[in-house]
Amino acid sequence: MEINDPTTIAEVTEAFARYEQALVANDVATLDMLFWNSPHTIRYGAGESLYGYPEIAAFRAARSPAGLARTLRRTVITSYGRDFATANTEFQREGSARIGRQSQSWARMPDGWRVVAAHVSFPG
Amino acid sequence: MEINDPTTIAEVTEAFARYEQALVANDVATLDMLFWNSPHTIRYGAGESLYGYPEIAAFRAARSPAGLARTLRRTVITSYGRDFATANTEFQREGSARIGRQSQSWARMPDGWRVVAAHVSFPG
Repeated sequence: MEINDPTTIAEVTEAFARYEQALVANDVATLDMLFWNSPHTIRYGAGESLYGYPEIAAFRAARSPAGLARTLRRTVITSYGRDFATANTEFQREGSARIGRQSQSWARMPDGWRVVAAHVSFPG
Repeated sequence: MEINDPTTIAEVTEAFARYEQALVANDVATLDMLFWNSPHTIRYGAGESLYGYPEIAAFRAARSPAGLARTLRRTVITSYGRDFATANTEFQREGSARIGRQSQSWARMPDGWRVVAAHVSFPG
C-alpha cells in the first residue's frame, strides 16, 4: 500500500480545502455533497452524534451560520493507496481561545472523494 | 469499491475487539502493536492531541490503568475495499453517566490491520 502518493494527496487536499471553504461559508449544498450519501456515514460533532446521511444533512440544514469562521493549524493529510485518506486538523474559531480537533476519513467514491466518517471535538 | 466485504469486515471486527480487550486490560504492548508505527499516525484523545507513534506510545506507557473498564454501544464498522475500514463506537465508563465517542481508521499494513488515526471525545 503506497502511503502519500502525490497525486492522491493533491486530490484529497483539494477536496479538504473545498470542504473548509464551504464550512466557513455555511454552503450547505457543498457540505452535503462532500459527505458520502449513505446510511453508513457517521459524524460525531462537538455536541451531537449523527448516524447516516439523513441525520447529518438535517443537522447542516438547521445549523446557525453565525460564528463559523476559523483558522486551521497542524493539518495532516495522509493517503493509503489511491482510494483512501485521513485528514486531521486542529482549529480555532474567531474570538475563542479553545482549540478544536477535526478528523475525517475520505474515500474515493464513483462520484469523487467523499467524507465517510468525521469526528469533531474540543479536548476536555 | 466494495463496501462491507464480509471477509474484510470479519478481519477488522476481530482487530477492533482485540484492541478493546487490550484497552480495558491496559495491555500496552497490544495497544502499541495495533497502532501504525509511523510518524503519520495521529490520536486525538479526550484530553490530548498526539502526533506520531512515539507520542502515542509515551501516552500509553504513562497512563493510569485505573478506571478503564467500559461498555460499548452503537458500534459501526464499515470497510471500503479490502484494505481500509472505519470503526466508530460510543462508550460508557463504569461509574460514569457520560457517553464518549471513539473513531478509528484502520488500514491493512504488511504486518496486519493497524489504526492509522483515532479520535476520542466526550460531547460538549
